[in-house]
Amino acid sequence: PGDVIIDGGNSKYTDDVARAKKLAALGLKYLDVGTSGGVWGLDRGYCLMIGGDRESYERLQPIFHALAPAPAGSSPAAGAKSAEQGYLYCGPAGSAHFVKMIHNGIEYGMMQAFAEGFEILQKADAPSVPESQRYNLDLHAIAEVWRHGSVISSWLLDLLELALEQDPNLEEYSGVVNDSGEGQWTIEAAFTAGVPATVLAHALFARYRSRLNPAFGDKVLSALRKGFGGHLEPKKK
Amino acid sequence: PGDVIIDGGNSKYTDDVARAKKLAALGLKYLDVGTSGGVWGLDRGYCLMIGGDRESYERLQPIFHALAPAPAGSSPAAGAKSAEQGYLYCGPAGSAHFVKMIHNGIEYGMMQAFAEGFEILQKADAPSVPESQRYNLDLHAIAEVWRHGSVISSWLLDLLELALEQDPNLEEYSGVVNDSGEGQWTIEAAFTAGVPATVLAHALFARYRSRLNPAFGDKVLSALRKGFGGHLEPKKK
Amino acid sequence: PGDVIIDGGNSKYTDDVARAKKLAALGLKYLDVGTSGGVWGLDRGYCLMIGGDRESYERLQPIFHALAPAPAGSSPAAGAKSAEQGYLYCGPAGSAHFVKMIHNGIEYGMMQAFAEGFEILQKADAPSVPESQRYNLDLHAIAEVWRHGSVISSWLLDLLELALEQDPNLEEYSGVVNDSGEGQWTIEAAFTAGVPATVLAHALFARYRSRLNPAFGDKVLSALRKGFGGHLEPKKK
Amino acid sequence: PGDVIIDGGNSKYTDDVARAKKLAALGLKYLDVGTSGGVWGLDRGYCLMIGGDRESYERLQPIFHALAPAPAGSSPAAGAKSAEQGYLYCGPAGSAHFVKMIHNGIEYGMMQAFAEGFEILQKADAPSVPESQRYNLDLHAIAEVWRHGSVISSWLLDLLELALEQDPNLEEYSGVVNDSGEGQWTIEAAFTAGVPATVLAHALFARYRSRLNPAFGDKVLSALRKGFGGHLEPKKK
Repeated sequence: PGDVIIDGGNSKYTDDVARAKKLAALGLKYLDVGTSGGVWGLDRGYCLMIGGDRESYERLQPIFHALAPAPAGSSPAAGAKSAEQGYLYCGPAGSAHFVKMIHNGIEYGMMQAFAEGFEILQKADAPSVPESQRYNLDLHAIAEVWRHGSVISSWLLDLLELALEQDPNLEEYSGVVNDSGEGQWTIEAAFTAGVPATVLAHALFARYRSRLNPAFGDKVLSALRKGFGGHLEPKKK
Repeated sequence: PGDVIIDGGNSKYTDDVARAKKLAALGLKYLDVGTSGGVWGLDRGYCLMIGGDRESYERLQPIFHALAPAPAGSSPAAGAKSAEQGYLYCGPAGSAHFVKMIHNGIEYGMMQAFAEGFEILQKADAPSVPESQRYNLDLHAIAEVWRHGSVISSWLLDLLELALEQDPNLEEYSGVVNDSGEGQWTIEAAFTAGVPATVLAHALFARYRSRLNPAFGDKVLSALRKGFGGHLEPKKK
Repeated sequence: PGDVIIDGGNSKYTDDVARAKKLAALGLKYLDVGTSGGVWGLDRGYCLMIGGDRESYERLQPIFHALAPAPAGSSPAAGAKSAEQGYLYCGPAGSAHFVKMIHNGIEYGMMQAFAEGFEILQKADAPSVPESQRYNLDLHAIAEVWRHGSVISSWLLDLLELALEQDPNLEEYSGVVNDSGEGQWTIEAAFTAGVPATVLAHALFARYRSRLNPAFGDKVLSALRKGFGGHLEPKKK
Repeated sequence: PGDVIIDGGNSKYTDDVARAKKLAALGLKYLDVGTSGGVWGLDRGYCLMIGGDRESYERLQPIFHALAPAPAGSSPAAGAKSAEQGYLYCGPAGSAHFVKMIHNGIEYGMMQAFAEGFEILQKADAPSVPESQRYNLDLHAIAEVWRHGSVISSWLLDLLELALEQDPNLEEYSGVVNDSGEGQWTIEAAFTAGVPATVLAHALFARYRSRLNPAFGDKVLSALRKGFGGHLEPKKK
């Protein structure tokens, strides 16, 4: 009793709410902590979102301050000011994993925006493009130039530039993309709050689609096209 | 001079506008006619949309009446009443192909709705579904039962039932789906009028996606996931 | 014990699974029955989807046959053949509400396809359209003509024709659209099975969006546009 | 003859192709130059994309080097290396405005991802959310904490943090969002190349939707819901 359990993973916020309640009955405190920074966190710093028992947060604040990318020699800040040091108390149990989940939902959307944009760049010399408008573009150089002051400057762009430098045509990748739950949970939260989240939802669905080859739904389209119009799609090989 | 040229194909309405103007300068009349009914038109009847010079329409109305699924023994109807007989004067040059184009745009959206719904039905016993909620469904019987009074009764559903009867798993199809222009033009018209047409646009994009295997954009996602999270997607075989 | 409880509403299939299990422990049988046909069912007939205990289904089949739009004088059919009479045994507990849910998901998608298509038709004379391509279209007559043999012939189109006949500009409607759960559950099922359901999801989100006026997300866009570009959007009145 | 005309605006790349051809016939050279950096460019630096006559580019390279955020004292770099100094020769006429256009398309998608994510955060305490999972979140502090090492660190996030600092509920904005062409052109380029660009398209459509109040398409939905289900939506006031 009196101990604080910290869940520092990518747990679902609804699980936090249930866990905090169970642990409270046992006299234990619970904090949910979300982290963003990825595998580069050690070099680049990473931010922390903290939810749950407020007193426990305050007691442990020095730990969060020490882990976060706060300036050397700084002291823990009060209230929302801590955000400037890279950590934030978000609210009651589950709120931190909720905020982290939305972070990942936004991340999915941003990634899909880059994916679609670079796919158009890559196909700028497709045979279907009128010849006078065809461009053979250097994707790596484009990612690089956009890193210098453009409106879409971002860490994701930095990472994409690194990836394209090593593998300009991204040949080492199969095109099959996984997801790890937060994208889906974000849409479930959008349902609960009645928020239209088309971009975030499609960013998730694009990953599902990458795993289907072929998609049954596309066969349905072909069957219908044959049915009403006599259109014959390419046969299955 | 005085002759009427009829374009009865799936032409782009903006081309009609230009053609009508050119032909008028030569003393020729122009009608654009859109038809919907597909390869079943002879058996089932097909409807006609007519645009262009109004006088020419009125002069030729007996032809349209004869072709349309008007009741035997009926006379051509005036104004919008002709719609009940399966043909309609829509307005000036291009208006008929515009209306036909939107018809096809809606068709794309309806087809994609069926495609997505049947893909969920087909995967209702996927390993990722909890065992107690897995269903092995008879897609053909479901299409059939929905034909009897359901809210989604439609000719597309009738056609899907026929296709599933012959090939319950749609195995003869490759999953590669073509498009014939009208879906794209519909979105261009939506741009011009400032109409949010997400469903119609995605119905088109789903067909584009069916032709990419893999999609470069998905490789971008994988490269980013590796970059920030060290996630390793399945390697290219 | 031995009684059969029928849930004939629009329940969630996952609830059926739980209920069937609870009732089985009490010696009771459970059937979930989905119905589609709307308020016109009495006139037009309506179809039935049935899930749960198979023996109970077989015992009660005469009831389903009597309710469904089976031809007068016909006998209950075996297996999937009953679908031709308007009722179908879909599988174990929850399967019928699952199938009905997907029906509604498809319905949402089809409705949204009509909504977007008719919005483009309605705005065909918008000031942003080049003058030579502007059309003032008779939406009611267009819905009517499409009912005669077109590829998008459907009961929804029949209903839309009726609505436009009574109120050609749909002026009695506020533009606020509700939803009743099945659309959302369909997407949750798509998540579970890993199916990209963009059109069905957006059909749901379009309804959410109709209830927001204004949307906070749109203010975020304006704030960003002002931030990077100095763009000033119309002020709040 | 021999002069170089530079179009440094946000022109459409297809216009550049036509212009370059016309000017060449007059003995004039043409460069299309896209710039990204917004109103902060003077403080923050801005990057330049250059297309058109290669020799003219090489002759004028010192100008581009001087304008771009190249390190003080550096010399113009050869080939794609110039990208590291914030300017890039992209290819023949139109290629620079093409690349800039895709930049803006990606920007639209990223903005919409933030818009949707922050709308979910803002509605985290909506009445429709179960009480134990409701959070009253400090949006400004969340934007701030994410700036410190998170995966979605970006200039757009920096700008959003500034906007939320000044106006935490974004009350000064009406929710009506304009667009300036590049988003639409990006989708047109996606059509030409056959690229599924759902996220970029919806980011554009969300802006269109923000200008409709109400949307006619939503009235279509209500009319259909009344038609098949007797559902009565809120009346027009």
